[in-house]
Amino acid sequence: MIKGRVRLSSAKVTAFAPANIALCKYWGKRNTELNLPVTSSLSISMGRLGTETTLSLNENRDVFYLNGVQTDQDSVFSKRTTEYLDLFRPDNSFFSVDTKNNIPTAAGLASSASGFAALAGVLNRLFKMELDKKELSVLARLGSGSACRSVYDGFVEWHAGARDDGMDSYAESLKAAWPELRIGIMTVSEKQKPKGSREAMAQTVKTSFFYRNWPDRVIHDLTAIKEAINGRNFELLGETSESNALAMHAAMIESSPAIFYWLPETIRIFHRVWELRQKLVPVYFTIDAGPNVKLLFLQGIENRIIKEFPDLQIVKPFESENV
Amino acid sequence: MIKGRVRLSSAKVTAFAPANIALCKYWGKRNTELNLPVTSSLSISMGRLGTETTLSLNENRDVFYLNGVQTDQDSVFSKRTTEYLDLFRPDNSFFSVDTKNNIPTAAGLASSASGFAALAGVLNRLFKMELDKKELSVLARLGSGSACRSVYDGFVEWHAGARDDGMDSYAESLKAAWPELRIGIMTVSEKQKPKGSREAMAQTVKTSFFYRNWPDRVIHDLTAIKEAINGRNFELLGETSESNALAMHAAMIESSPAIFYWLPETIRIFHRVWELRQKLVPVYFTIDAGPNVKLLFLQGIENRIIKEFPDLQIVKPFESENV
Repeated sequence: MIKGRVRLSSAKVTAFAPANIALCKYWGKRNTELNLPVTSSLSISMGRLGTETTLSLNENRDVFYLNGVQTDQDSVFSKRTTEYLDLFRPDNSFFSVDTKNNIPTAAGLASSASGFAALAGVLNRLFKMELDKKELSVLARLGSGSACRSVYDGFVEWHAGARDDGMDSYAESLKAAWPELRIGIMTVSEKQKPKGSREAMAQTVKTSFFYRNWPDRVIHDLTAIKEAINGRNFELLGETSESNALAMHAAMIESSPAIFYWLPETIRIFHRVWELRQKLVPVYFTIDAGPNVKLLFLQGIENRIIKEFPDLQIVKPFESENV
Repeated sequence: MIKGRVRLSSAKVTAFAPANIALCKYWGKRNTELNLPVTSSLSISMGRLGTETTLSLNENRDVFYLNGVQTDQDSVFSKRTTEYLDLFRPDNSFFSVDTKNNIPTAAGLASSASGFAALAGVLNRLFKMELDKKELSVLARLGSGSACRSVYDGFVEWHAGARDDGMDSYAESLKAAWPELRIGIMTVSEKQKPKGSREAMAQTVKTSFFYRNWPDRVIHDLTAIKEAINGRNFELLGETSESNALAMHAAMIESSPAIFYWLPETIRIFHRVWELRQKLVPVYFTIDAGPNVKLLFLQGIENRIIKEFPDLQIVKPFESENV
């Protein structure tokens, strides 16, 4: 793709990209080759939770390490990484890629988003491409759709775009800080998901009757969430994010056959959150394509939330010192 | 409504009506006064599980008994029964109504369906109205929509109809026997539901984006279920019924705020059913507006199913000797 116009760096380069959690979900592609989405989406990056990748050129063959362990060439991780590197690979060149995630891999915590954003970052450095953030988000998107949002910190909007070549399908920072915002990660299961997001999305788009109205829902929710962020209206942010996540799962549940990521423990957490809200504790949840639940709340009730959910991993998206 | 053209019977009259479980659900009204549905639906009656009601005229005031206990005049049961009796009440007349359910009341097992079908039945007898089944189903519908299906045994289709007065919105028997068919009732909770079906339906119709495609889904599912019944294709029957029930819940889950009847135990049963199917055991589920799950299977695997679910209450819809 960009072969021929790159200058190679001889050095080993490292880049970090945060994981991100969508408050208005990305679900469904209009182009599976270029990861072009049916709708826009909006996320919040997870501070220091994410992926750190080190890249260098290697002799004879590609070598990949995931969390310190060399991965099998036939693994999904190796295959997707190779496929992505092939977009940039100069003739007869090979790479050594060392990837470190500090989040569970493939358990609905979007490690592929931070992974491909970090990979795009190191490729940008190794090849001295000097891309700006917007261009970097387009490159990251080619590896995994939601990776385009992991190029930034804070609130990020991914514009769906309309062009066939995807050059108008990029993410940008909303440039709004909300330092009191907290994300609480409830890990229900670290097991690999029964069905990956790519396959699940494609099946939803193909078989769900309800998905036809997903774009209308997203337009409604994006407007509400941006209004909530601009006005620091936490109730509106929480309500809309929770409802949007449930809507995404509803479309999956209505697919044929049903795509069902929830476990009994997932539902137990939903009910506990709703019970807390009945007691006027302002806590909401969101959930991606997996069983794990993420809580949304503000700094002021952090102690109350820790008391209710002692195992919670709390992320402060707008503090430089996270975790 | 039918005042003035009735002849009173002095006797005490009794009628039984079966509960019914929709395989293609009724969800959403186009007229809340007359219980006119947005779509047609299809059910199977539950044999001897249902409501037996005894009716007689009473002096001075209405008296209601539910499962042997006199009910409070302010209870939902008394109010809905009074409202329904008012449609038939001759001037200065009062009723004694003795209602016995052999199914949990208001826990998603449609006791209002068998209740109003039985009540329509005793009113027909007390007032010697000599209504045929189709007319009786229209009368029962005025008490509770799905009650129109409880007028029959076996497979029943409720035609949505198009008229404003609802006279073309009635149920009829599909006249197809499938003696090997079994329904297994898994009672997860006998507690009163957090939100009644009437309110939940109205909220879904009003706030769900996805509900707009529910009518298309129902057209698809009704065709498939009738094809399955005609061809005794159990896999098609099970798959479509399960998917239709999940679709109804998906529309509720996508409502604002979410209507969520599932408990952790509900989800545990879903996963157990799916695990059994992966082992090629042909068992499916359906679920109404509540946490309780109903299994669908054939006589041939009854022992296997009992081993997996020892607490199951098994109904044989097509045998005269049930339970």
